[in-house]
Amino acid sequence: MATAAIIVIGNEILSGKVVDTNSPYLCRELRGLGVDVDRIVVIPDEIDVIAAEVRAQSDSHDWVFTSGGVGPTHDDLTMDGVSKAFGVPIEVNESIVARIERATGHAANESQRKMASLPQGAHLIDTGDLWFPVVVVGNVHIFPGIPELLQKKFDSIRSRFQGVPFVLRRVYVRRKESDIAQELNELLEAHPELMLGSYPRIRGTEYEVLLTLESRDAAYVTRALEALLARLPADAVHKVE
Amino acid sequence: MATAAIIVIGNEILSGKVVDTNSPYLCRELRGLGVDVDRIVVIPDEIDVIAAEVRAQSDSHDWVFTSGGVGPTHDDLTMDGVSKAFGVPIEVNESIVARIERATGHAANESQRKMASLPQGAHLIDTGDLWFPVVVVGNVHIFPGIPELLQKKFDSIRSRFQGVPFVLRRVYVRRKESDIAQELNELLEAHPELMLGSYPRIRGTEYEVLLTLESRDAAYVTRALEALLARLPADAVHKVE
Repeated sequence: MATAAIIVIGNEILSGKVVDTNSPYLCRELRGLGVDVDRIVVIPDEIDVIAAEVRAQSDSHDWVFTSGGVGPTHDDLTMDGVSKAFGVPIEVNESIVARIERATGHAANESQRKMASLPQGAHLIDTGDLWFPVVVVGNVHIFPGIPELLQKKFDSIRSRFQGVPFVLRRVYVRRKESDIAQELNELLEAHPELMLGSYPRIRGTEYEVLLTLESRDAAYVTRALEALLARLPADAVHKVE
Repeated sequence: MATAAIIVIGNEILSGKVVDTNSPYLCRELRGLGVDVDRIVVIPDEIDVIAAEVRAQSDSHDWVFTSGGVGPTHDDLTMDGVSKAFGVPIEVNESIVARIERATGHAANESQRKMASLPQGAHLIDTGDLWFPVVVVGNVHIFPGIPELLQKKFDSIRSRFQGVPFVLRRVYVRRKESDIAQELNELLEAHPELMLGSYPRIRGTEYEVLLTLESRDAAYVTRALEALLARLPADAVHKVE
């Protein structure tokens, strides 16, 4: 089963100035592709912290995605952190300098050369209309923090990430969670491979709990759904999707 | 300096079904109180993973806040994880059972007794109108995942968390980030204690980069702001807040 971790790098998230929309986006997209994201970490712009986190997640996952810290300023330290994680020096990539100079029409300044500085051995994936390629070091995919750019870049390489997608069914229940917990436990005993989610609503809606039944095996989900519906009183079920 | 970590527990976040709004809320509120959040971790509903993460963050921070995993169902494993992190058994707290029975008017069922099961030695903070108290184990504050409840509970105990607040100034700049990176680096060399953020906008606005200058020392921020404005061309500054 393909697994992934997301590392969000940026003091602006931790201080509450900016809300991270990149990890929700990546979670949804990867889930759709059948890849299990089992950890998201948000860390500050500090080389040693980035290095330790990239090392740990790279060792324990098939794929790692980083967001943020790749611009030209003092607090853009992701490339330095990834270099340190892999024990390689950072060096100016002349092919990126050439692209920057083609795009801007003048010689790259010091800040632009910093943006072109990558961990030695980085793999570049060219992605059609994006003049700056996706940078990959080992299994670590380095994305910018600007949501529009991250989404374009991920979209351009999404076909590289393929797992077995989940089949999802939803049951909206007109009972309190504590009143159906016993039925849910019995369902899981009979269907131990089922991924069962239970989400109470606090505001007034037509249901009190949303149940999600998931598996990569469609027939298994169907059997579990039938078993659940047989266990619940008929008037407890508001809707099945 | 008071530090905090936030642990968000829930498969529904990692699978992209639910967007976590609790960690942005806590980041903003804690920042306002002068507490540094320096790590957010999102992990699945698995006892061993929860235990390891709670242990690690509890050891390295003044305060830890968890969100999610405290309901009555099979996937609510936060109390078990925290118990394991602190090496204490989990036990039914009869004072909580009594509150549940007072609130519902009937004897607690098995699910409700599960909700009343806490790590041994847990500290309960009663909070006025909330019938379920805030549960604290060591320096770990355990909050429910439902945003309305988490916010009410945090609000009721916020006076316990007091650091020295930051003073923040904002400068909106009509230049590309790469064109002012040199000035920013010089500013930081002259003011090494300054927390300087630089946030480019990709969509058309009246400015291209938002700079944030922060310190717990108001006079320091004022001096740094003056030094920055002296460095930037006058027509580069759109607005100062």
